[in-house]
Amino acid sequence: MFIVLEGGEGAGKSTLAADLAARLRAAGRTVNLTREPGGTAAGELVRGLLHEPLQPWAETFAFMVARAELVAEVIRPALERGETVLCDRFAGSTFAYQGWGRGLALADLDRVNALATGGLAPDLVLYLDIPPEIGLARKHGETEAIRTGLEARAFHERVREGYRAQAAAAPATWVTIDALQPAAVVAELAWSAVAARLG
Amino acid sequence: MFIVLEGGEGAGKSTLAADLAARLRAAGRTVNLTREPGGTAAGELVRGLLHEPLQPWAETFAFMVARAELVAEVIRPALERGETVLCDRFAGSTFAYQGWGRGLALADLDRVNALATGGLAPDLVLYLDIPPEIGLARKHGETEAIRTGLEARAFHERVREGYRAQAAAAPATWVTIDALQPAAVVAELAWSAVAARLG
Repeated sequence: MFIVLEGGEGAGKSTLAADLAARLRAAGRTVNLTREPGGTAAGELVRGLLHEPLQPWAETFAFMVARAELVAEVIRPALERGETVLCDRFAGSTFAYQGWGRGLALADLDRVNALATGGLAPDLVLYLDIPPEIGLARKHGETEAIRTGLEARAFHERVREGYRAQAAAAPATWVTIDALQPAAVVAELAWSAVAARLG
Repeated sequence: MFIVLEGGEGAGKSTLAADLAARLRAAGRTVNLTREPGGTAAGELVRGLLHEPLQPWAETFAFMVARAELVAEVIRPALERGETVLCDRFAGSTFAYQGWGRGLALADLDRVNALATGGLAPDLVLYLDIPPEIGLARKHGETEAIRTGLEARAFHERVREGYRAQAAAAPATWVTIDALQPAAVVAELAWSAVAARLG
């Protein structure tokens, strides 16, 4: 099973990822916990590249370098070994940030993403929904807040709109969780969505 | 005028670029001499990334990061100022190396390249044709021989085939020059192709 965590800055994705990994392991699953754009040697280099100011398509292609590597080197091999893959951000981030956020055409992003992933899509997307002003305040001062963390609030509002549109368009795959709830409640709701799919 | 130099490793592109820049300046033109994947801060970072072993699409996307930046930051502004742009490698390299060389679908590469360039294409492509075994021997020991310089000979044969196919398909834009000729002859042939288009 391929599970992706999505959401704006400060939504609590890393905390939830660690919690879900522990619960999946307790349920006897082998878990492969990874993140974009890191997770491979190239991904870490891309993370450095994203500190530069980049054109919208250059930024998108940088994420695609990381995604193509992550899918081929980490995600597909893990799924083939029967592991559960838990990934912090994936294609949903591209549509939300580069599509709704930067205004690139969704159809173009879809084609480029399909080339990077070879068509691989998550079985479940857990979307942690949070108002940008609260998420960004949580992140304040954290070093992980690259590029996008420095953007204007209007950008993050469009990103949220993009996430909500994706969740509404794919209700069988996307589960929206209100990230303003206590972390224990968020974890419990996420776990019930995962458990329902474990079979 | 946007002029691109293409050709396999060791074909003499850098030497020719310097020569043409000098001739264009002597003819009163302001010349902007650049290269892929360098030429911008992001491009230099991409150059570092390409030292990693990468999936074919990851490699392609890395070049697209550099191209999107180069077009937007260097090439378009220079053309808008009325300068002559001379670029060492451009889209022709993508089709030759990632298309014919790595086997990625040309239609996919075409779409991705169009997003990176915003549709910008060269007015003239000077293709320096050289048998791979001779070009690679010339490059031997040079530090510029990144990634592709380490590939098997069969790969470089396919790249040459790709260059020839592109030149044959676009005779109004592509001029093929036999790079086994003395550098002075190569420069003279290249210059006459350029001069014919200066008007």
